[in-house]
Amino acid sequence: MPELAYVNGKIGPVEEAVVPIEDRGYNFGDAVYEYVASYGGRLFRLEDHLARLSRSMAGLFFPPVSIDQVRDAINELYRASGIERAGIYLQLSRGVDRRDHPFPKAPVPQLVMTVRPLKEKPAHLRKDGAAVITVTDFRWGRCDLKTVQLLPNVMAKQQALDSGAFDAVFVSDAGIVREATSSNFFIVSGGMLMTHPLTENILAGITRQVLLEIAAEQKIQVEERFFTLEEVFAADEAFLSGTTTEVLPVVTIDGNPVGDGKVGPLSEKLFATLRQAAQE
Amino acid sequence: MPELAYVNGKIGPVEEAVVPIEDRGYNFGDAVYEYVASYGGRLFRLEDHLARLSRSMAGLFFPPVSIDQVRDAINELYRASGIERAGIYLQLSRGVDRRDHPFPKAPVPQLVMTVRPLKEKPAHLRKDGAAVITVTDFRWGRCDLKTVQLLPNVMAKQQALDSGAFDAVFVSDAGIVREATSSNFFIVSGGMLMTHPLTENILAGITRQVLLEIAAEQKIQVEERFFTLEEVFAADEAFLSGTTTEVLPVVTIDGNPVGDGKVGPLSEKLFATLRQAAQE
Repeated sequence: MPELAYVNGKIGPVEEAVVPIEDRGYNFGDAVYEYVASYGGRLFRLEDHLARLSRSMAGLFFPPVSIDQVRDAINELYRASGIERAGIYLQLSRGVDRRDHPFPKAPVPQLVMTVRPLKEKPAHLRKDGAAVITVTDFRWGRCDLKTVQLLPNVMAKQQALDSGAFDAVFVSDAGIVREATSSNFFIVSGGMLMTHPLTENILAGITRQVLLEIAAEQKIQVEERFFTLEEVFAADEAFLSGTTTEVLPVVTIDGNPVGDGKVGPLSEKLFATLRQAAQE
Repeated sequence: MPELAYVNGKIGPVEEAVVPIEDRGYNFGDAVYEYVASYGGRLFRLEDHLARLSRSMAGLFFPPVSIDQVRDAINELYRASGIERAGIYLQLSRGVDRRDHPFPKAPVPQLVMTVRPLKEKPAHLRKDGAAVITVTDFRWGRCDLKTVQLLPNVMAKQQALDSGAFDAVFVSDAGIVREATSSNFFIVSGGMLMTHPLTENILAGITRQVLLEIAAEQKIQVEERFFTLEEVFAADEAFLSGTTTEVLPVVTIDGNPVGDGKVGPLSEKLFATLRQAAQE
């Protein structure tokens, strides 16, 4: 079957999968999520996704959830799908209760998933690189938690598309470049990789972490530090990293070229190395 | 029947009301809401709630929704409930579509409601006033839009309860007192009312507006301006305003008394006048 949904233990068609209207994910955005990709029939970095899911839940004071059961459920759904290159979306809400701000007394987290063939990014985007716009970061203060508080991300992504760009990059009031709407952001300068340090303002991306590991193995110097848009324009390369973007070169920002405005060699090399690691 | 739900035209038991797992309200918090109270069998300020609903939808670039149909649906549900003093929760999401950040091509907004007896605030809270705590405002930048991006509100409310307080008041990085987790915030100083001006950082509360109208009628001076916590402690009175809080005196903040730490006369008078206006 090409697409499947999972709701609290039951697997079935996506169109028939429902949740109660008083699921707190629906009324308050009181839910966390993960998106896991498979390569060649294997879920890539599943344990890292599960570890982050735990951290997100702990950050929101969710009741204890068995990660072993979540892992089993993901594997069960993935096996049932029979899809070699799949994307699994997983959402865990705090529970269902009469709508009221305080945490419910005895919440039962709800696990909802979908599995589908993963749609690859268009070849021209990988070849020519992406245009992005900048948007002042107007998200909430806990972007380190992977929650469904995603309306600012949705609005910024749509604004990017409306202006002919691929994505938007959030820049702080103080001019610090943070991350894109669903990807982390890297620059390459003098052969060195730079990316925003892990704070409450960005997500600890799994792909970001994999790239830092690859850089360590390949003796590529890395600095996790704050940098401005001016530093990005002065850089040699820039790219987005994420589960579906993988390593996606950014060639213009707000219409102005990054470096020479072409896809750079380190971005290409890191994409190839990441793919290799994922397919091993 | 004591409690009812409405989902896209169908009225039934709350427990049976469901939405698809790919409703954007569930995956992205891409939904707006209102909460309307009835007094003596009449919905209070329904037109103001509908007008704000329109503004919230416009702010998110929702497709056009017929406010006449929404009004009819609310009235239909309210009549079906037969509840004199009710609270109607109404949520409109952008629509249902395969999960992806960009707006769907042809979204159909989903209307979901519940109606229940409104639970009055405890008598002791109204009589003795409420304790609140302060929390640095970590919400997103569009709190003027009444969306379900409410996780920071949930967390701050729970933090307040955990510390024995009734609610939390969000204070900006620069020390400006904004509003509570689901109420606006007023102070009284030398017989004058003060509240935060309408910016993107607070909700344009309906009760806030009613109170400003009452103040104008009663020749009470009003200033909509920024003020700090220091100014709150130096004030004579403070109170929360909202559809369910109505006018709720705040007597301590972070354990320190506001004014003499007792419920003040203007707070009491405004509560009585608001109730009178609502019941007329």
